Amino acid sequence: MGRLTGGDPSLLRRINSAVVLDALRTAECATLTEITRLTGLSRPTVEGVVEGLIEAGLVVETAAEEGAARRQGRPARRFRFRAEAGHLLGLEIGPHRVAALLADLDGRYLGTAARDVAETAPADERLERLRATVADLLRRAGVARSSLRAVGVGTPGIVEEDGTVRLGTALPGWTGLQLGERLRRSFKCPVLVENDANAAAVAEHWKGAATASDDMVFVLAGLSPGAGSLIGGRLHRGFGGAAGEIGALHLLGREATPEALLSTTDEPLHPLDEQAVAEVFALARRGDERARAAVDRFIRRLVHDVAALVLALDPELVVIGGWAAGLDGVLEPLRRELARYCLRPPRVALSLLGEAVVPTGALRLALDHVEEQLFAVEGTVTARR
Amino acid sequence: MGRLTGGDPSLLRRINSAVVLDALRTAECATLTEITRLTGLSRPTVEGVVEGLIEAGLVVETAAEEGAARRQGRPARRFRFRAEAGHLLGLEIGPHRVAALLADLDGRYLGTAARDVAETAPADERLERLRATVADLLRRAGVARSSLRAVGVGTPGIVEEDGTVRLGTALPGWTGLQLGERLRRSFKCPVLVENDANAAAVAEHWKGAATASDDMVFVLAGLSPGAGSLIGGRLHRGFGGAAGEIGALHLLGREATPEALLSTTDEPLHPLDEQAVAEVFALARRGDERARAAVDRFIRRLVHDVAALVLALDPELVVIGGWAAGLDGVLEPLRRELARYCLRPPRVALSLLGEAVVPTGALRLALDHVEEQLFAVEGTVTARR
Repeated sequence: MGRLTGGDPSLLRRINSAVVLDALRTAECATLTEITRLTGLSRPTVEGVVEGLIEAGLVVETAAEEGAARRQGRPARRFRFRAEAGHLLGLEIGPHRVAALLADLDGRYLGTAARDVAETAPADERLERLRATVADLLRRAGVARSSLRAVGVGTPGIVEEDGTVRLGTALPGWTGLQLGERLRRSFKCPVLVENDANAAAVAEHWKGAATASDDMVFVLAGLSPGAGSLIGGRLHRGFGGAAGEIGALHLLGREATPEALLSTTDEPLHPLDEQAVAEVFALARRGDERARAAVDRFIRRLVHDVAALVLALDPELVVIGGWAAGLDGVLEPLRRELARYCLRPPRVALSLLGEAVVPTGALRLALDHVEEQLFAVEGTVTARR
Repeated sequence: MGRLTGGDPSLLRRINSAVVLDALRTAECATLTEITRLTGLSRPTVEGVVEGLIEAGLVVETAAEEGAARRQGRPARRFRFRAEAGHLLGLEIGPHRVAALLADLDGRYLGTAARDVAETAPADERLERLRATVADLLRRAGVARSSLRAVGVGTPGIVEEDGTVRLGTALPGWTGLQLGERLRRSFKCPVLVENDANAAAVAEHWKGAATASDDMVFVLAGLSPGAGSLIGGRLHRGFGGAAGEIGALHLLGREATPEALLSTTDEPLHPLDEQAVAEVFALARRGDERARAAVDRFIRRLVHDVAALVLALDPELVVIGGWAAGLDGVLEPLRRELARYCLRPPRVALSLLGEAVVPTGALRLALDHVEEQLFAVEGTVTARR
């Protein structure tokens, strides 16, 4: 049974700091009087808290020239949140490239970098590539590595809470890789590893096609589609972190793989060969019959996989991303078939973030982590067994 | 932005009442001193709250003979929660029968009743059947209709929040029926209408095969399977209440319907003809080749539908119920195929509640509603935009 007890003083201090910090961040710049009004805290409490935040480097008194011109007497001191007090990275480790996005504590972008990597590259080479990309980005932005407060990472596969890749067939040497631990050696701050489609869902909800929807599915459409979903605005990872791994659906009933479906010969395409796929789609556009039939088969399969997801989850919105989203004729058949077979068809939209979607989501996860520490204090009073 | 403000006195009274009530319910019977100790509230507060609860009829002083024998002086007064102060109903309205389960405010069963109804019966006849079943049950149990505090209802279809059936093809006249409103005419208390598979998921979690799992899927296996799921212990209804309606999956790709799959002739079975289905399964057991092939096709489809659900949601546990769960050879192929195709296969178990599963879940929903009013007070302090 839950117990009701009095507040504990350190929790109270933490709540007050979080409240003041949040008020300052929202107001951008405020006087002690304004903070007192915004927070409902007493003047002495606000003074004490602001003093502590200045010592911690999170708040600074704005210089006189930043404020309004002097009018009469001494102007009230003004304070602001130091978004530059720390930095965040959003990383993507994909089959063809690694990418990094750098931001301050307000989530404002300070720079981005990406490098190609061979799909056959072993894990060490891929991680080395990532390290070089990050080092380059930090140097160009003039940000010290020690200033990083959190790093988010999006990568294919089923990822466990500690950042170990439980299963990841898309990248060589990925299954079993202790990715979180490996990256924490390079970064002294928390490293949050997430499935790439999950990170993408978070990204579209933050600043993409799903800002208005808390119940959405992001489909990373490719030869082996993956998906991430938000339920009530929260990432649904599943019990074992494997939710949305619909790529395995085509294995059921021993149906043909997407690589076979998309092939115009008797040989299936290579699972990661985007070039070959693009050629099939280009041929289809030019009217080639066999290519057209292959594209039709591929789209029908994608529709089936997405429909299965929609029937299970009943989202408000489905966002389609990944390279297949850039191909002609994916969106319309999807809309049509979902409207036909789903009892309550969702809206269907294309990703607005394109290639940036995974690092953007990874960055948001890093930002969430820092915000939880700095700004959020949640307490629940429950009287229930 | 969330604001921190002082407690409001009526909320405080409500919290104190909930805490005392919950303590009394847990302890079964307690003195004022014991309640004071259990709740951490002051003696005068406890006295005032208990007085109010007695006036509301929710608490009673236990008679002297109920307590321990007198020892010396006047024994301390003892109080208990009056579980008999109100009653709850859990109802099922299905294609072949209506059923009702009656309980007190502790969720203890007081009686049950069920009647067959023709699958072709129009909505009015079905509801009349339900009313007669309930009236009979209340009379036999000696419970006045006015004593009902909440009624839960489980029924096939997509159900909206107000209890309107948005889509329900399993029962004649069900689509568009304002079921909640119709039932609220018979009952003066809150009526909560829920999809039957959703209610079943809640039931298995409460007292069935899923008491140890907060992330589970219940599959109502039949010719057109439905499913309900709990995520983190909470019912996942989906954005439009249509989550888990996997019965439509077979329509995709114009595949054969289950009725056609299970037929041993060129004619499909009738969608609701359980008798014909049972015969096919019986024939298969006796070694009939065509029946065996039909059963194999049916099970393969069920496995596919369940796998789609599992890939989308990644539950810890799948509970199989509905009539198909009673048929030989459903569980093993399901386990085998899920282990083969799911990246993280869930445990698979049979329903423990059988025919009682939907009314049991409906009762739990009614109990949740009442407990929320009586026992639960949740307050959240958040400093976050």
